[in-house]
Order: sequence, then structure tokens, then C-alpha cells
Amino acid sequence: MAASASASLRHHLLLLRRPRFPLGPSPTFRTSYLPRRHQRLFASAPSSSTVENGEPSSPVEPSEGASVVDVNPPRGTRDFAPEDMRLRTWLFDQFREVSRVMAFEEVDFPVLESEALFIRKAGEEITQQLYNFQDKGGRRVVLRPEITPSLARLVIKQGKSVSLPLKWFTIGQCWRYERMTRGRRREHYQWNMDIFGMPKVRAESELLQAIILLFERLGITSSDVGIRVSSRKVLQAVLNMYSVPEHLFTEVCVIVDKLGKLTREEIEKELITIGLSSEAVQGIIEVLSLKSLPKLEEVLGSDVEAVADLKKMFSFAEQYGYADWICFDASVVRGLAYYTGIVFEVAFDRDGKLRAICGGGRYDRLLSTFGSEDIPACGFGFGDAVIVELLKEKGLLPDLSRQIDDIVFPLDEELEGPASSVASSLRRQGRSVDLVEDKRLKWVFKHAERINAGRLILVGKSEWERGMVRVKILSTREEFEVKAGELQ
Amino acid sequence: MAASASASLRHHLLLLRRPRFPLGPSPTFRTSYLPRRHQRLFASAPSSSTVENGEPSSPVEPSEGASVVDVNPPRGTRDFAPEDMRLRTWLFDQFREVSRVMAFEEVDFPVLESEALFIRKAGEEITQQLYNFQDKGGRRVVLRPEITPSLARLVIKQGKSVSLPLKWFTIGQCWRYERMTRGRRREHYQWNMDIFGMPKVRAESELLQAIILLFERLGITSSDVGIRVSSRKVLQAVLNMYSVPEHLFTEVCVIVDKLGKLTREEIEKELITIGLSSEAVQGIIEVLSLKSLPKLEEVLGSDVEAVADLKKMFSFAEQYGYADWICFDASVVRGLAYYTGIVFEVAFDRDGKLRAICGGGRYDRLLSTFGSEDIPACGFGFGDAVIVELLKEKGLLPDLSRQIDDIVFPLDEELEGPASSVASSLRRQGRSVDLVEDKRLKWVFKHAERINAGRLILVGKSEWERGMVRVKILSTREEFEVKAGELQ
Repeated sequence: MAASASASLRHHLLLLRRPRFPLGPSPTFRTSYLPRRHQRLFASAPSSSTVENGEPSSPVEPSEGASVVDVNPPRGTRDFAPEDMRLRTWLFDQFREVSRVMAFEEVDFPVLESEALFIRKAGEEITQQLYNFQDKGGRRVVLRPEITPSLARLVIKQGKSVSLPLKWFTIGQCWRYERMTRGRRREHYQWNMDIFGMPKVRAESELLQAIILLFERLGITSSDVGIRVSSRKVLQAVLNMYSVPEHLFTEVCVIVDKLGKLTREEIEKELITIGLSSEAVQGIIEVLSLKSLPKLEEVLGSDVEAVADLKKMFSFAEQYGYADWICFDASVVRGLAYYTGIVFEVAFDRDGKLRAICGGGRYDRLLSTFGSEDIPACGFGFGDAVIVELLKEKGLLPDLSRQIDDIVFPLDEELEGPASSVASSLRRQGRSVDLVEDKRLKWVFKHAERINAGRLILVGKSEWERGMVRVKILSTREEFEVKAGELQ
Repeated sequence: MAASASASLRHHLLLLRRPRFPLGPSPTFRTSYLPRRHQRLFASAPSSSTVENGEPSSPVEPSEGASVVDVNPPRGTRDFAPEDMRLRTWLFDQFREVSRVMAFEEVDFPVLESEALFIRKAGEEITQQLYNFQDKGGRRVVLRPEITPSLARLVIKQGKSVSLPLKWFTIGQCWRYERMTRGRRREHYQWNMDIFGMPKVRAESELLQAIILLFERLGITSSDVGIRVSSRKVLQAVLNMYSVPEHLFTEVCVIVDKLGKLTREEIEKELITIGLSSEAVQGIIEVLSLKSLPKLEEVLGSDVEAVADLKKMFSFAEQYGYADWICFDASVVRGLAYYTGIVFEVAFDRDGKLRAICGGGRYDRLLSTFGSEDIPACGFGFGDAVIVELLKEKGLLPDLSRQIDDIVFPLDEELEGPASSVASSLRRQGRSVDLVEDKRLKWVFKHAERINAGRLILVGKSEWERGMVRVKILSTREEFEVKAGELQ
């Protein structure tokens, strides 16, 4: 796309266009009182066609001493112009439709949460990149990095008033703060589905069906994405075999999750540093390389929960009809501290690099960390960015152009009143009506094409005197007169 | 509602229930590492049936030294449990449907913005209550208090690439920070509709139609709410009459907007303090009391823009068919610094006190304060809270209970597999299916009632052996067998 060229052209135009102060009756909007640090000229435009701001801004002092505000959103965040918003709405509608057929209820939470909900010591990336700060009342707060703790909080608050299981979903924005952000996002939207109160792997199997139903709706096939499934109980069993102290479990999980990002040597070193024997480390690395369930059973024995859980899930997958989509891969551990059982991740392969679309798992002991009784739970988070990349790559994005039923256009100024009543009546009937004025007819026709208008309704003097308006069907170029009162 | 009693009962139960640590294989979730300031027991539950947190919390140290997280959202913010979310979704759908018939396009912005966008010196309440802070990179940022500046920012960024007029809407959360919040909210959602590039009052007239179409959809009549309309040009004309310096205009607007909150004497004092003569003050107060357009014309003369604009709007109102809904009231000024022309507010009368639902106006000179060329613009913000109060009071809230098509229930454990395939097939057909297990049949029937299920589909052993399932239509109690493969 030539978006980057046009963006810099726009940038150039903006620089040429001198900041202008209101000359009229009101000096209200003088901005010279802005602190100097806000006096930033338009930062360099983003390099993609979207309105994302991941580029370093280059503050320039305006030449006339005028205060000029950065027109980009804060670094690492996005605006959604109409075409971006149509795409987002379409995607969220898919999330909602799948959640509906799965009989999940929608919930929502403030994007600002208490920091305490997210304080965990296991060294997870997510807690090291908190977008946290102190509010004016001295409270530690955070733009939430994930939604699961808020869900757990609400489940506890609802207490005995709800009947289990709960099946909840939510779509919300999540934040992170990295100092070094070279084009990386600081926010994304996430679709979460969570089940509270179902201890069996039925729950995980339901979550996987939801994810696969979504892909099916989007036209994505099992050869486009891989869903890799394992269980933290696999790692737990290995640690038990080597008598590794239980309090190291979470840290081990967080470390081995970095396999693929760090080298095997670095992982081994980290595991030794927290106190594991080199035998244990080798044992872990070996088991994590397994990709066959019978082989896992051979290594761990058939009486460990991990094996039973996974076998049950794969048997369910046959019955649901999605066995093609999933595979066992012991290297899946996930980077969140609180997972306790089944874990899974969905990714697509881009030039040999896996790009994560979705991840989830069972977290049966999260609620007790908040001081409540535990309730078995599992869930997943599904981001809004990588899926769109995949859909683009596969040419699966639908046509999301604008669509308007009618344009109403008065042919001269004295017909503005009648045009109001024509537009008003059509809108009351539920038709979308763009009321256009002060333009040439040529512009109106072009506009009609741009917004895919169905009809053009011309309010002209001679017709109106006879109580009529002129209707033009834009697809067929058919034209006729209709009584204004009978227009539908 | 007895919600407050049940809330405190729940609070009591939570206190009785001792915090329990995971005893199992993983001490992962020990929370004693939480800083002491986070060790807060469940704060007192909110007093309303909603899950809003506007009450002061009362931290109690847990008896066993366990760390317990506050289950309420941050003070002044709300969770949306399923029933609250259904209401919100329904309301937002109304906003979206009206925006659609008005041919507006949806846009969105980050909830976090640069503080510079909101720095204005006129003493507005909104800028005095900014939820602002410094991010880790030293940038001044803010949880946006309103959305208009973000809209303006995006219009500037889009530059010449878009054709005017732009008709945009957005629904987003806005924030404020007050130190003294006695039950006052720190966030609310706002529906904004804005038009850029239409200099005439046609734009304002379109906005009013949108608001009135919404009320009509909701069942609210012109006797329930009042839409009061004026123009800042009225005040401008009065200031011109008394030769008040132009740079005082905005401050005067912000001060006289407090009429009703402050006494007349306090307003007069403030106006004198910023430098107005007592004649000018008397002149302002007199004109602001006018509620008749002919009278205004008498006082200001017919050649001032204020009068022409207002007359045109009231004439349009006749043609649109909403003249009943609006009235002229010179005391409407609005508290935002940037308004330049028509201003309006929508309120309902509750025990003699006006509760604002919506406010808006024309802001033709906002863009130049950001260093761009001005584009004529107007818009409104419509909150999510007061409208719901009004709907409740009028009994206009729709039935928003849960609605599920089918419950699938395997009658014993070995039928869990078949139940998966039954549920899966129905979901693929677009039906919402709750797959229930490990419950007694009695519970299932109760549950079916609670979620308004249409059918109960029982997967039993003898039927399944014949390839059949048992279907019960819950409204009619009708019961029959269907071939599993033919279930629709």
C-alpha cells in the first residue's frame, strides 16, 4: 500500500499549513498557556495504513510560537477511523455470535483496576510490564494487562447469589507498558471466555469448540492455524519425579515458557539458578519435547492426571468434530503464573515463526490468592491484532464498505425545510438517510457511489409543489416520482 | 429493592468464610508477598443493586494474616455483571441504531490521551477534575474526561484525505477524578455524535433529531424531558453591547453556566471579579432570563446572528416534526470553554431538580487551538447513567432476561461424548446451546426456567442406541423423540 507515502505527504501539508489563531470575536482558544513540553508539532505519521501510533515522535518547535498538539494518539495506541472501526465491529460481532451459541453471558469491568490484583512474584512478562501508577488519592492502580483477575474478583463478589457453573465472556482493552517500544503496541483488545465451577476437562473442551467455531465462521481452516494442547500437570509430574520443591513450580513454568524466545542453554541456566538439579533440568527438557500422547503415557505412566485429562480431551475433540484442529505438544506451558492444568495456545505460522492468536488454560487456584475459596476455572484470551493479520494474509476480510439506504438532497435552498421532513419520515421508518446540502449535483452522485447509497431522493421545486419527490434507484439508474407522504 | 440487605449479608458470609490457602501440590498462589497496603479485606459492598463502587471502603485486617484483595472495582467505577451488561448492550444498541439511521459512522479512540488535548484555562469543572498522571516515560497523560478533543485530533490527522462533512459517532468511557467522591462516579459512558464541516444550523438540527429519535425509540415523550436551546452568540451580543473585552468571553460563559448551582449573588460577584462592570453584569443576567425568541429579538435586534440562527433552528424543528420537544432558554450556556454558537441541553425534572441527560453545541474554533485550520463543527455527549434512571422511573426498561435456545443434558456419564456431538451440531446451526453435566434432572429444569431455555434435549442410553434423542419443548411441555442427525 502507498499509505506511507501519502501519510508523509499529509505530514508535509500539515507543516505547510500555518497554525492560525482565531481572529474572530473570541480569543478563547489561545493556547500559548500550554506548558512548553506540550508544544509538539505533528509527530511523524505512522508507517502503516492504520492509525496506530507506534513510531517515535519527533517534536519540532512550531515556527510562529504557536502551540500545536500532537495529532497522533499516545504512543503505542490506536485511533479507529471509520474503516478501522467497521473492521473491529465486524470482528467483535463474530466473537459475540460465537459466545451466544456457546451460551456464555457478557460481562465487563473497568479498564482501571487496583494494582494488587496483578501483583505476582513469578517473574511473568505481564507483571513486569504493568501500566501502573499512583492515583491522586495515593492508591496504586493499573490499566489492566489482562482480564482474568477482574473476572475472578467479580465471581467472588457475586458470592452465593449465583449458581455455578458460570460461563462468562468479555471483550475489552488491555494495556502494557514497555520502556523500549519500537513499534510495539501498548494496548490491544481481547476476547475472553471463562468458565467457573466446572472441574472437568469438559470446560476446556467447550472453550476449544468456541475458538474453532470462530475460525469456521471466519473461513479459517485447521491447516491455517495450529491449536497445541498440554497440561501443567505434565510438568508437575516431572518435578515430582525429581523431587523438586513444590514452591518452585510456578517459576519453572514461567521459565520454560520462554523456550523458543531464549536458547535452550539460557533456559537451562535459569532453571539451575533457581535451584534445580541438572538431572531435573534434563528431565524437564526431554519431556517438553514430546508431541505424542502415547509416548507421554509411556514416560509418566497412565495413572497421572495429566495423561487422563489429555486423553479425555482428545476423545471429546472427536465427538465435537474438531479433532483435526488440535494436537498434543508438551512444550506448551503458557507464561501466566496461575495456570494449574490444561493449557493451550493457538498460533499461525508466518515465515517459520509462530504468531500467537490465542492462549488459555485452567486456573483452579486463582481465587484463593484473593482470599476467597477456590472455584475451579478455565478460560482464554483471544487478541484482536494477529487474527486480523491472518485474515488479511488469507484474503478473508469481508467487504466492509459503508452502506446507506437513501440520500436526500434539496435542489435549492428554499427546499431545505421540505427535505427535513422527507429525511425525518424515512428515518422514522428505520432507513439510514444522509441529508446533503450546499453541494453540486455532481458531488452528490460521487458521494452516493462512495457510500453505496441505495437511492437518491431529490426534492425539487416543481415536484414539491405537487407534493412529489423524485427518486433515483442508483443500482439500476431507474428514476420516478413518488408522493412525498408515501415514500418508504 | 432489598439489595442493600442482601449485599451486607453477602459481606457477612465473606467474613465468616476463612481465607484458605491452596493445600494441594502447588504453593504457587501464596499472596503474603503482597505489600501490606494491598492487604485489604472485602470493602463494604455498594448500597445499590448494581455493582458500582462509590462507597468508602473499610479495610479490615484479615484474622489469619492472609492477604485478601478488595473484591470491589476501584472507587467510583462499575463492574457490569451479566444483567447490568445486558442493559448496557441494549442501550448502546439504541445509540447505534439511531446513529445508523442518521447515517453517522462509528469511530473510536484510546481512553488514554495526552493531557495537552485537555489543558484549557477557562476554569471549567472538566479540566479541574482531570484523571491525569505522568507515565513511566515522563509524558503527561489522562484518562479522557470527554471525547470531543480526540475527535478533533483525528479529523486533523485525516487531513485532506476525507471529504467533508464528516458525521461521526462514538460510544466510550470518560473519566474524572475528584478527591471528595461521596458516591459520585469517576467514570461513565458517553454517546457522542459530531458533525465536522457544516457551518449552518442544519447540523445542530440533525443532532437534535438524533436525540429525539432515540427518545422516541425508548418510549420517552416530550413531556418527560425538556430540550433547551440557546446560542453563545446571545451572550456575545450582550458583551458587545457593554464593550466587554473579547478575551473575557469564555470565562464569562463558564461562570454564568453555574447559574442554578451557585446563587445569583455569587455569579455576579465572580463576574465583577474578572473585570465586568455592574451594568454589564445586570445586562447579562437580564438577557439570560429570557425564554422567548420574539423577546430576545426585541432586546438584541433582528440582525444579530444569534437570533437568525435560533429562528432557523425552530423553523427546521417544525419541518422535522420535533418542535414540541424543544424550547428557547437563554440561560443555557454549557460549561465547556470551546462552544461558539448554538448550545443545548436535555434534562429531566426530578423533584424540581434538573438532571442533565445530554448536552452539546457548536465549536467552530476548536481545531485552531490544536494548531490546525478551523473546521466548523458541532456535537453532543449523551451519558449512560441518567437516561437509565429516567427509564427506570417511567417503567420503560425492557425485559432483558437471559434467553437460550437449547439445553443439552446427557443422562449419564458415558453419554457425555454423544452430548458433545449433539451440542456441537446445534451450535453449528446457530442455536445457542448450554451443555449441562453432573447435575440432577431437577436442577436442570430449574436452570431451564432461569435462563428461559426453549428446549431441553436429553441424551439417554436407550434412545441413543437407536440414534435418537428426547426433546422437550419447555413452553408447551410437549415431548418427543428425534433422530440425533436430524435435530434442528
